[in-house]
Amino acid sequence: MPVYTAPTQDMQFLLHDVLEVSGTGIPGYEDLDRETTGAILGEAAKLAEDVLAPLNPVGDAQGCRLENGVVRTPEGFREAYDQMREGGWPGLDCDPEYGGQGLPYLISTAVGEMFSSANMAFNMYQGLTHGAYNAIHAHGSDEQKATYLPKMVTNEWGGTMNLTEPHCGTDLGLIRTKAEPQDDGTYAISGQKIWISAGEHDMVENIVHLVLAKIPGGPEGVKGISLFIVPKFLVNEDGSPGARNAVSCGGLESKMGIHGNATCVMNYDGATGFLVGEAHKGMRAMFTMMNEARVGVGLQGYAQGAVAYQNALAFAKDRVQGRSVTGVKNPEGPADPIIVHPDVRRNLMDQKAFTEGARAFVFWGASLIDRAHRAGDAQAEGLVSLLTPVIKGFLTDKGFETTVLAQQTLGGSGFTREWGLEQFVRDARITMIYEGTNGIQALDLVGRKLATDGGKHVMGFFEMVKGFIAEHKGQDEAFDADFLEPLKAASKDLQAAGTFFMQKGMKAPDEALSGAYDFMHLFGHTCLGLMWARMGLASRKALAEGTGNAAFHETKLATGRYYMARQLPATKTHLARIESGAAPVMALDAEAF
Amino acid sequence: MPVYTAPTQDMQFLLHDVLEVSGTGIPGYEDLDRETTGAILGEAAKLAEDVLAPLNPVGDAQGCRLENGVVRTPEGFREAYDQMREGGWPGLDCDPEYGGQGLPYLISTAVGEMFSSANMAFNMYQGLTHGAYNAIHAHGSDEQKATYLPKMVTNEWGGTMNLTEPHCGTDLGLIRTKAEPQDDGTYAISGQKIWISAGEHDMVENIVHLVLAKIPGGPEGVKGISLFIVPKFLVNEDGSPGARNAVSCGGLESKMGIHGNATCVMNYDGATGFLVGEAHKGMRAMFTMMNEARVGVGLQGYAQGAVAYQNALAFAKDRVQGRSVTGVKNPEGPADPIIVHPDVRRNLMDQKAFTEGARAFVFWGASLIDRAHRAGDAQAEGLVSLLTPVIKGFLTDKGFETTVLAQQTLGGSGFTREWGLEQFVRDARITMIYEGTNGIQALDLVGRKLATDGGKHVMGFFEMVKGFIAEHKGQDEAFDADFLEPLKAASKDLQAAGTFFMQKGMKAPDEALSGAYDFMHLFGHTCLGLMWARMGLASRKALAEGTGNAAFHETKLATGRYYMARQLPATKTHLARIESGAAPVMALDAEAF
Repeated sequence: MPVYTAPTQDMQFLLHDVLEVSGTGIPGYEDLDRETTGAILGEAAKLAEDVLAPLNPVGDAQGCRLENGVVRTPEGFREAYDQMREGGWPGLDCDPEYGGQGLPYLISTAVGEMFSSANMAFNMYQGLTHGAYNAIHAHGSDEQKATYLPKMVTNEWGGTMNLTEPHCGTDLGLIRTKAEPQDDGTYAISGQKIWISAGEHDMVENIVHLVLAKIPGGPEGVKGISLFIVPKFLVNEDGSPGARNAVSCGGLESKMGIHGNATCVMNYDGATGFLVGEAHKGMRAMFTMMNEARVGVGLQGYAQGAVAYQNALAFAKDRVQGRSVTGVKNPEGPADPIIVHPDVRRNLMDQKAFTEGARAFVFWGASLIDRAHRAGDAQAEGLVSLLTPVIKGFLTDKGFETTVLAQQTLGGSGFTREWGLEQFVRDARITMIYEGTNGIQALDLVGRKLATDGGKHVMGFFEMVKGFIAEHKGQDEAFDADFLEPLKAASKDLQAAGTFFMQKGMKAPDEALSGAYDFMHLFGHTCLGLMWARMGLASRKALAEGTGNAAFHETKLATGRYYMARQLPATKTHLARIESGAAPVMALDAEAF
Repeated sequence: MPVYTAPTQDMQFLLHDVLEVSGTGIPGYEDLDRETTGAILGEAAKLAEDVLAPLNPVGDAQGCRLENGVVRTPEGFREAYDQMREGGWPGLDCDPEYGGQGLPYLISTAVGEMFSSANMAFNMYQGLTHGAYNAIHAHGSDEQKATYLPKMVTNEWGGTMNLTEPHCGTDLGLIRTKAEPQDDGTYAISGQKIWISAGEHDMVENIVHLVLAKIPGGPEGVKGISLFIVPKFLVNEDGSPGARNAVSCGGLESKMGIHGNATCVMNYDGATGFLVGEAHKGMRAMFTMMNEARVGVGLQGYAQGAVAYQNALAFAKDRVQGRSVTGVKNPEGPADPIIVHPDVRRNLMDQKAFTEGARAFVFWGASLIDRAHRAGDAQAEGLVSLLTPVIKGFLTDKGFETTVLAQQTLGGSGFTREWGLEQFVRDARITMIYEGTNGIQALDLVGRKLATDGGKHVMGFFEMVKGFIAEHKGQDEAFDADFLEPLKAASKDLQAAGTFFMQKGMKAPDEALSGAYDFMHLFGHTCLGLMWARMGLASRKALAEGTGNAAFHETKLATGRYYMARQLPATKTHLARIESGAAPVMALDAEAF
């Protein structure tokens, strides 16, 4: 059975040595001293390690079952959900006005990584509820907020997001679900939604569905979409669940992974719905939720990589096969542990360097979201909007790749169910698809975000990197060579790609869009390069000052050097692909394929 | 349900336009005219498309069951196996002396791709039998050959390879299975073998197990390993199956993919075994089989990519979402088919360019094997030995990656069982692991093959590429720029990596081994670059001469240009990784991870 140990030491390093949270001036961060965050992370770690992780293979093997319209979750899920509720975890960063603890999003991000690594399918139930909570909190009326949010904060009630229909997912302008206005001000919702995560299950007493639908007579396409609350049980005056609404689960999807999460076909047969915000402005309401949701999926991607890596490492230290080429390392044994072999090292270092870099990137992104929301900082908002598709697309691609690398470390054992690695691969795979496929992320990045506010945010990013390098270079020759020069080279590649897009893309959008995916990866690598440079600085400082665990910091520096030397050069290939332009990509007619 | 159409046109192009088989002078190739190969491929295509492909999802869903020691294969497998036997497919390239058809390995390779794309788990049953046939054919006594081969050629009897034990796979020196000499000249085999593909099943009347075991008192480690035939049923004088031997299936592995193939734990409890070849020379016997077996796995890798690509393409032409950025392409529909979008193109072209290049590479490799075996050409033998780990490692890594890309084309549908893409991903995954993990392939390439015969074969490869470029350059400016220059650049990167290994690796083997995996990929890209240049030439020639299907050849050239512009630049990053040396890889102590 796979193991999981929450990376609390690494998280504390990020919070306090790298992000230096308590000195940032972000409202709510002032209380985040080492002791406080240590206590929170420690408690979350216990739940993740002792309760959620052991249920992960159970959920995978049993999956969910639909019986007479009721979805049964795997054995042990209900009890674990109760424990999570009792610990107050679902409301960690929710508004105290509705019963939440009001902690920064950054803290719930750290906790979310643990829960996601331990049991991604399980953690999605509260994740979806949190997404629905966010939408109602931002766009609901006071009455709606009072009715639904307190129960959602505690997760007594669940929440879902209903966007996709059988004939459309990415292109929501095509949706057919109808919302007929009723005399009492409600709407009758009719239609079918698919791939609704946590759409129906037995762990909550009510489920608050958020549904995109069209009010007849409204504008065509995405401009005619409205957002509705459709509760499974209509809510009585006293706040208790009342009459059953005309919404039901029509089937469960049979899928590659996340078996413990119910992926539902939802049928709406004239169900009573309540308009959220203005009519026809549903897409805008959805979009304001998107940064956080997409950062959350990027987190899921690397979180699967992180737990997979832990298991690969444990195997590599334990399994003995062959002898080291530089001399026997385990003379008492029949062979050396495979971690002595350079190619096993190469594999483990790729996993480790990515995972730790990704964690830093997401924590930084979460702190930008906090800065934007809590301090009303428009620059932070712009920057994190720009970075969001990178966090989502790059980290899920590489997170999945990391699970595959980890599986490979185990050789044949990696392919068997027993060791659990193959589940991480199957579970991680969805993160590249949902919440907007990674192709859509690339399109969002290049087709929309680069040009937002006249390109101000991407220019700001380049300035930031340049400023960072200028500030720190010349103090330590080795650090310059190992960290700052590679970062500079990557940033130069990224700028060259941006310039190519500007020169070519203005005339022919295909030129830019043909390179969008590679640009997303080029950007991701540059961000991880920046993160590693920042972590390297923090570790160098800690070592110079003699604070913290010296071995931890030496390892951090060595891992950073690996990233800079071995992963960052990927920017070269991405740039070459981008600069080859649209011609090779678009040469063929569709019929010629 | 997924679709499959055998790529007979592309195969004919490779055989006749690129490899120009009938003019090669390889014995047996003289009869391979277009009509003959067309007829064979056409018949194989029917079996693959109509019989094997529809059973692929069935095999995945049902898997194999162990009931009272008997393994039940999925519904329909027996009947399909009968049809395959009746068609004479298993003996296609087998020795006519034992009932085979004596066709070149190249032809069975082409047929093998179809069967493997259509149903990899199913095709493994005959694949394993073929491997065991090869070993007995090369190393068995005349009596052993007469006893076993005729039944194995027809696949009335199956065959297996028993290497791995619970505590060792890669390091076979550690095996514990014992072979005690008996008075009658046989051996009593005792031990446990795991991950034995097709180890037990209900589609053959007998199974001929080839087992690696140690004769007590023999040399330590791999030098004390011998090879034995252990039939499930001992064979009577008249050649019929007789008494049950003491070998049994102790369990089936629960695994990520290839569910239709029985992966068995095999228990040997003093089973009667017959020594193959000399005592203690078992590893050598195994090694002589390895090139063909590993090329076969490389084929499986890209074959899964090929069928996955077909399904991605069908979806991309059918599914409508969004509008083309360069103007509406499907004005009658509510949206354009997604193939109009540049990033969907990028994805499809990556799949297509890899798959067709890989097919050429494997066909070329198979022709080298034929040249080595049929014409006794030592140079061809040396070259294909060098290329074998590249074919296996690179094509399975990229083949798997291609299935993941294809799955991505379908968005959410790719994650569901229903569309079948996720099965291709799960099935393809094993090819990176079995028959020597890809890390082992890299080690074989860099640690052994590069230096074989004083580096003669790798030098020969470089000379060949150089000669090819020199021969063809200067005739067509566009072809030079699109094909020959990128090939030259890739080859230069490969040589630079080789030079780095020679300079550094002599002193410190870690320096070379830390870059081995990237070298394997660098080499693979260079080979595919060479293949694309050769295909490009062949298509240019056909267009100039007005022979064949002009649209096919134009498409081929466009696909080749894509490979050269968009995939070949990966060599840059691999070289940068290699040249960063061992320091970043080996910096950490095992305890520091």
